[in-house]
Amino acid sequence: MPSYTAPIKDFQFVLHDVLQMEKMSNQLGFTDASRDVVDAVLEEGGKFMSEVTAPLNRVGDLEGCKWENGVVTTPTGFKEAYEKYCEAGWGALTAEEKYGGQGLPHVLGIAMAEIQSSANMAFAMYPGLTHGAYEALLRHGSEEQKDKYLPNMASGKWTGTMNLTEPHCGTDLGLMRTKAEPQADGSYLITGTKIFISAGEHDMAENIIHLVLAKIPGGPEGIKGVSLFLVPKFMVNDDGSLGARNGVSCGSIEHKMGIHGNSTCVLNYDNAKGWLVGQMHKGMQAMFVMMNAARLGVGVQGLSQAEVAYQNALTYANDRLQGRSITGTKAPEKPADPIIVHPDIRRMLMTIKAFTEGSRALALWTGIELDIAAKHPDEQRRQEADDLVAFLTPMVKAYMTDYGYQCATMAQQVYGGHGYIAEWGMEQFVRDARIAMIYEGANGIQALDLVGRKLPTGIGRLARRFFHPVSAFIEDKMMDPGIGKDYVMPLAKAFARLQTATAVVSERGMKNPDEAGAASWDYLNLFALVALGFMWARMAEVAKQKLAEGGGDKDFYETKLVTARFFMDRMLPDTAAQLAKIQAGAESTMMLKAANF
Amino acid sequence: MPSYTAPIKDFQFVLHDVLQMEKMSNQLGFTDASRDVVDAVLEEGGKFMSEVTAPLNRVGDLEGCKWENGVVTTPTGFKEAYEKYCEAGWGALTAEEKYGGQGLPHVLGIAMAEIQSSANMAFAMYPGLTHGAYEALLRHGSEEQKDKYLPNMASGKWTGTMNLTEPHCGTDLGLMRTKAEPQADGSYLITGTKIFISAGEHDMAENIIHLVLAKIPGGPEGIKGVSLFLVPKFMVNDDGSLGARNGVSCGSIEHKMGIHGNSTCVLNYDNAKGWLVGQMHKGMQAMFVMMNAARLGVGVQGLSQAEVAYQNALTYANDRLQGRSITGTKAPEKPADPIIVHPDIRRMLMTIKAFTEGSRALALWTGIELDIAAKHPDEQRRQEADDLVAFLTPMVKAYMTDYGYQCATMAQQVYGGHGYIAEWGMEQFVRDARIAMIYEGANGIQALDLVGRKLPTGIGRLARRFFHPVSAFIEDKMMDPGIGKDYVMPLAKAFARLQTATAVVSERGMKNPDEAGAASWDYLNLFALVALGFMWARMAEVAKQKLAEGGGDKDFYETKLVTARFFMDRMLPDTAAQLAKIQAGAESTMMLKAANF
Repeated sequence: MPSYTAPIKDFQFVLHDVLQMEKMSNQLGFTDASRDVVDAVLEEGGKFMSEVTAPLNRVGDLEGCKWENGVVTTPTGFKEAYEKYCEAGWGALTAEEKYGGQGLPHVLGIAMAEIQSSANMAFAMYPGLTHGAYEALLRHGSEEQKDKYLPNMASGKWTGTMNLTEPHCGTDLGLMRTKAEPQADGSYLITGTKIFISAGEHDMAENIIHLVLAKIPGGPEGIKGVSLFLVPKFMVNDDGSLGARNGVSCGSIEHKMGIHGNSTCVLNYDNAKGWLVGQMHKGMQAMFVMMNAARLGVGVQGLSQAEVAYQNALTYANDRLQGRSITGTKAPEKPADPIIVHPDIRRMLMTIKAFTEGSRALALWTGIELDIAAKHPDEQRRQEADDLVAFLTPMVKAYMTDYGYQCATMAQQVYGGHGYIAEWGMEQFVRDARIAMIYEGANGIQALDLVGRKLPTGIGRLARRFFHPVSAFIEDKMMDPGIGKDYVMPLAKAFARLQTATAVVSERGMKNPDEAGAASWDYLNLFALVALGFMWARMAEVAKQKLAEGGGDKDFYETKLVTARFFMDRMLPDTAAQLAKIQAGAESTMMLKAANF
Repeated sequence: MPSYTAPIKDFQFVLHDVLQMEKMSNQLGFTDASRDVVDAVLEEGGKFMSEVTAPLNRVGDLEGCKWENGVVTTPTGFKEAYEKYCEAGWGALTAEEKYGGQGLPHVLGIAMAEIQSSANMAFAMYPGLTHGAYEALLRHGSEEQKDKYLPNMASGKWTGTMNLTEPHCGTDLGLMRTKAEPQADGSYLITGTKIFISAGEHDMAENIIHLVLAKIPGGPEGIKGVSLFLVPKFMVNDDGSLGARNGVSCGSIEHKMGIHGNSTCVLNYDNAKGWLVGQMHKGMQAMFVMMNAARLGVGVQGLSQAEVAYQNALTYANDRLQGRSITGTKAPEKPADPIIVHPDIRRMLMTIKAFTEGSRALALWTGIELDIAAKHPDEQRRQEADDLVAFLTPMVKAYMTDYGYQCATMAQQVYGGHGYIAEWGMEQFVRDARIAMIYEGANGIQALDLVGRKLPTGIGRLARRFFHPVSAFIEDKMMDPGIGKDYVMPLAKAFARLQTATAVVSERGMKNPDEAGAASWDYLNLFALVALGFMWARMAEVAKQKLAEGGGDKDFYETKLVTARFFMDRMLPDTAAQLAKIQAGAESTMMLKAANF
């Protein structure tokens, strides 16, 4: 069975040494987020997930959730583990102190989200969705709603969901049919069918707070007539006790490729009582709060599966004896060399390593900016951070899930035939990782969001929040004797390609939107490689400094430098191909009549 | 549920118009392989597989094989479908007439293998493995063995297997422990455990002929002491009737990520009676016959899953209404446009289409050369063909399975959330496709075979069999007004990169084998794109000719030209990145100590 150990040292390196989190925490008034506290949370969290939720990962896959007459039973051990999880306070980490949370920075929440997903992605989704619903209510709910629901959501006593998709509409929510009839008492009666509702019904919490998109009859057509509603599974009395069952029921659960431990529900709303959250017909705005946080979280899921798959593939590569090194026997005392001596096994391991460590830095950088956007005293700085997060989010979601899946597949490949056998657990990582490319906006939608919405915003204002620091870094460090040649030069080359691609996409896209659309996928991936290259160059710089200072873990910093080199040598060159594809234009993509495919 | 229709028209285009199969058939004495016969086989075969085996694909996945006390039961309907399959003579297509076969060319067998695998990969493996065992016996068995076993294997009455892997050895067969003790009567008693034996035990045929690698005690150490044995499940009497059960039993079957309908067995040999096939200690040579044919077949499996996934994704893309085209509404009469209007959906469909059609042409070209290698009257031409097949095989196997898996994943992506739900059948294609990257030599092994064995053979003799025709084609057609600029120029650019890469890999690899090893994966993929580019340029040439001639299916040829352009525009540029990665060298791949990963 696979095992998992949280990569604490790498989190510490990125948070403390590269991103200087403590400085940010002080600026933003996170007085409880000292370096010691952060380290303790990571260590305790890592320990808890390794010991409590990771051992349930395979059980969850094998048993799946069971549906009987509307009642959903989670796999053996899930309910008990969730109780421990709530007791230990893991759900409340970043929630407001006012609502019983620990008020820690979001960036720490993102680190913990990675750890939780690596340990058990299906399990982690229950509190993950609750967190998303909590955030949406926090920002858009009334004070009364917040007081009534947030404390129990922060603690995890109640879980949350997001209800968007219907059988005939996923991406295009304007086609939505679920309706909300206003009642005399200010509430609404919700009727309709929602599908693909993760954690929509289960036995782990005493109540479930559904956030549901629906249309108020008579409102504007399409997406502009969609509103957000809070619909509890059980009505909540004024004293906080639970009342009658509401008119929402689980019609069935899906049989899926993976994340079997999470219930994916069809929810039938039949005159279910709900309350408007935020403004009428502004449901999408409120939902987007949830979706943006969720997209970052989903990106981290991709990373998480690559990380846990990597850890196990590495163990296997050191244990499995097969063949001899092509440069001569390395383990003469054994019947064969461990397969980690073989260059192609190393290619796969190094690729995953460069991806996970680079992506981790990128996700945590985004997380820091998320905290700055929420709490920085300077409005200008808040806006800058908000812009940057908006620009990075679709890329983080799509690239990290797409490449995370590929890396999980690579890690499985290291096992040879054993990777295909369920007992080894590697194929589950691949199956679980696969969903992250689809939900919270399929990756193609992320690419379109990037080039169609984020890139043009403010005539490139969002893009400049990323381009400027990268450009400044390159200018500053290009001639640096330590990192200039090996790390900054390759980044500069890739960045120039991104600049060219940006001009091409913007200019052609103005004349013909299909040009931007057909380039969007390659553009997103080119952007992602530059962003990872930026993180790797910054990590190389810090590693060089640490080595020059002496002391500390020399092997760790030297390994960082080698991995950075590998990224520059063997992954960043894809930017050349991506630019060429973008420059080739949309014609051959768009030319065929649908009937001629 | 997904459906499947054999792409007959595309097979005909490649076989008749591009590869001019009829000319080859006449040269090689395949008098029964007229154009009409080939067309009839493809059409009847396509019909049979669509109607008989394709409907069992999901049943096979859901039920899987069952093991009880050594007895394996295949999924509902498999046994009956296999009876029909044998009755219709599909197993005997390319088998020798002497043994009751139809004596048709191998290239037609490869076309049918694609069709069979698209329809039901798990099912197709039963006759597929029988075919491999048939070929090995045909080439290396004694006349007596051939007369005794081949007729029933050709008809499919008995199935075959190949037994290589043991728990501690897969790639490195020198570590093998299964032993074969010589007996006074000339037979051997085989004892040992084999794992991952596809179709190793089942209820579809009355007998199973196992080909088993084992070591004769006292023979040379390692791989040089391995011999091949024929071990029937039931002893075969001299009159052809079945005798006693042999000492081979199925200890268990594996729970796998996919191909659930095929039994993957642990086979325990306990003093099982077997007979030497071919020469003592030369088992690997005999097995390689089977493995090379099998590798081509496995490459085609990758293609087959991409093809069937594409067909269904295309239907979905035309049916599913979601959003409006970014260049303006295309279906005003509908609530939304079909998603095929969206550029990124097209990018995915075009990518799969360019892959499947290019790969099909490549596989069939290899198949034609396989026939030439076996039957051409001129020895020199036979050797050339044999060289070319040897050079192409590892690339066909690795590239077509790796990219086939990626394409199946892309097709699944077209479905959005529904792609993740088992009922739609898309996720099965992905899971089934995954194994093809692993078995018959994991893809990394193929890459090593290519750069470590095939490339240096005869100081580049094998490579020249590919390089020369490509180079001649480019020289000849570079200035062609019809195809020069759009199709031959991009090919020439990519081919120059392959030539550079070949020099780099050869020169550096001589000094340090790890350089070749670390470059092998990128080299294989660069080679594959050039090979596909060659096929696309040739197909474009034929399409242009056909259009100039007038008549025929204009849409079909114009679509070929657009797809060729898409390949040149959006897929071939990857060669730039692959060359850059190869040029970057092995250092960062090989530098880390195993403990520092």
